[in-house]
Amino acid sequence: MERPYVVGIDIGGTNTVFGIVDARGNIIDSGSVKTQTYLSPDKYVEDVCKNLLPLIEKNGGVEKIKGIGVGAPNGNYYTGTIEFAPNLPWKGVIPLAAMFEERLNIPTALTNDANAAAIGEMTYGAARGMKDFIMITLGTGVGSGLVINGQMVYGHDGFAGELGHVCVNRQHGRPCGCGRKGCLETYCSATGVARTAREILASHTEPSLLRDVPAEKITSKDVFDAAEKGDEIAKEIFEFTGKILGEALSDFIAFSSPEAIVLFGGLTKSGDYIMKPIHKAMEDNVLNIYKGKTRLLISELKDSDAAVLGASALAWELKDL
Amino acid sequence: MERPYVVGIDIGGTNTVFGIVDARGNIIDSGSVKTQTYLSPDKYVEDVCKNLLPLIEKNGGVEKIKGIGVGAPNGNYYTGTIEFAPNLPWKGVIPLAAMFEERLNIPTALTNDANAAAIGEMTYGAARGMKDFIMITLGTGVGSGLVINGQMVYGHDGFAGELGHVCVNRQHGRPCGCGRKGCLETYCSATGVARTAREILASHTEPSLLRDVPAEKITSKDVFDAAEKGDEIAKEIFEFTGKILGEALSDFIAFSSPEAIVLFGGLTKSGDYIMKPIHKAMEDNVLNIYKGKTRLLISELKDSDAAVLGASALAWELKDL
Repeated sequence: MERPYVVGIDIGGTNTVFGIVDARGNIIDSGSVKTQTYLSPDKYVEDVCKNLLPLIEKNGGVEKIKGIGVGAPNGNYYTGTIEFAPNLPWKGVIPLAAMFEERLNIPTALTNDANAAAIGEMTYGAARGMKDFIMITLGTGVGSGLVINGQMVYGHDGFAGELGHVCVNRQHGRPCGCGRKGCLETYCSATGVARTAREILASHTEPSLLRDVPAEKITSKDVFDAAEKGDEIAKEIFEFTGKILGEALSDFIAFSSPEAIVLFGGLTKSGDYIMKPIHKAMEDNVLNIYKGKTRLLISELKDSDAAVLGASALAWELKDL
Repeated sequence: MERPYVVGIDIGGTNTVFGIVDARGNIIDSGSVKTQTYLSPDKYVEDVCKNLLPLIEKNGGVEKIKGIGVGAPNGNYYTGTIEFAPNLPWKGVIPLAAMFEERLNIPTALTNDANAAAIGEMTYGAARGMKDFIMITLGTGVGSGLVINGQMVYGHDGFAGELGHVCVNRQHGRPCGCGRKGCLETYCSATGVARTAREILASHTEPSLLRDVPAEKITSKDVFDAAEKGDEIAKEIFEFTGKILGEALSDFIAFSSPEAIVLFGGLTKSGDYIMKPIHKAMEDNVLNIYKGKTRLLISELKDSDAAVLGASALAWELKDL
């Protein structure tokens, strides 16, 4: 293979991680810079390149690199821009893909984090070989990436697949960061689980190990640890969260009838405590013709690598400049 | 053009209508048989062909026909079969596409009615030239057809796009024919509107022109006629229906971010009474990044022709046998 590697760049609010990746999904070299410290995107791109180029040189030079894939919040695949990302230090529309391309002379594509996760899973992970699946990322928020007919779904404007903001409770829904109410994200994100924990702890008088954790610091890991010790409140938190997610998934299936739904994120580490209620609610609520057909899977990519792998996967499709 | 025509066959529970269609969407000849009278699919296919062949001969013969497209309830595009269609006289799985192909030696494709409607709209109607749109058919039930990246979405099993069975009220939803509760179809289909009319008439004491219509016979046309005469109850029925549909559409947009949503069916004939509440609820509830971007359109195909045109459109893509 003339160009055996791709570069993945994952832009997070705190850190930017980049890596050189081979066709099997091995990260053969990697580095990082602190996103937050760059008030200007020019200086940021400059420094990422300054750190990345030595890695590229070490592994055979620019001519070994097929392309660069960038995963970023509010990334738009069509335009290669980041648009009004609330958690990044740069305001407005930033043409990041073009900036990297110009600086490095390597073809560059960019998309949002959840889409990158989906492409990563399709290229190296649990969705290898699948043409129709839905990726759901359960993190600080709830993101999603859709693959239909073997293609990422970007929609007419590049912003398709915001399933974290589908409404799951229109009457009495929790307020969401997006300004609306009842979004899936307010229940099934990390903050949603903590919120559920606080609500259930407040409305019950039973003892619970979770009462030892400061309410505003409860994570799904704490809830898992408590559940492992037989804590009933902890189990109830997972039941509540899983039911809402499973019900939502049953509606997503009616949309694209996917072969699988792949879940990614900390919440999935709680194993059967969360996966069983999700699966039960999904199967209990799905339309008859879909019953038992859509597999519920957990990401096969290592947490620490997934973002860079996902971004990198975008680059295999790129054509030479 | 060597093969200037396609054939569209629309299989309904009562009638089967077929027509020969040119590239501009003109039905140049058509006929029909009574679906209900055929207990055997073999005899049915035999009779459709017996009625269709003279039309084909009259218009230049089989060599002028590029293909046959069939729209049918529970039609599966991948297999060309009708599967367990509750409103058709034939039970189990019927390989209709293969049966027509064998009998006529013309390549044949088959899909469900709502998908056919979407392809028809994309080929001859309101969605010409669009690569991302959602078709919603508002009839006895609520059906849908999705086009993403310029392709019909069939899902991994051929059954994608049952948006009439997305749950819009999980707590207190109306029972649906599918056995579940709260499906969009129970509110926004013709029967759903009639049900809303009965509920609102029963819960209000105000006079209404609709009280003159037998409750079980109320149609959206009756509600429209009453609204035109200033009937407040009639307007309230449209407000209620439109709000639920618009809210659902706002969630559909978060899935595929379509350029347009195209509505088809009797309900759309009620004009602003229904379209304004739909549009308002859609824009009020959609995630910020989508606001004002997705157009809400009404089908441009004549009701009487739409089903045959939709089915026929499927055939332009067919390859010679």
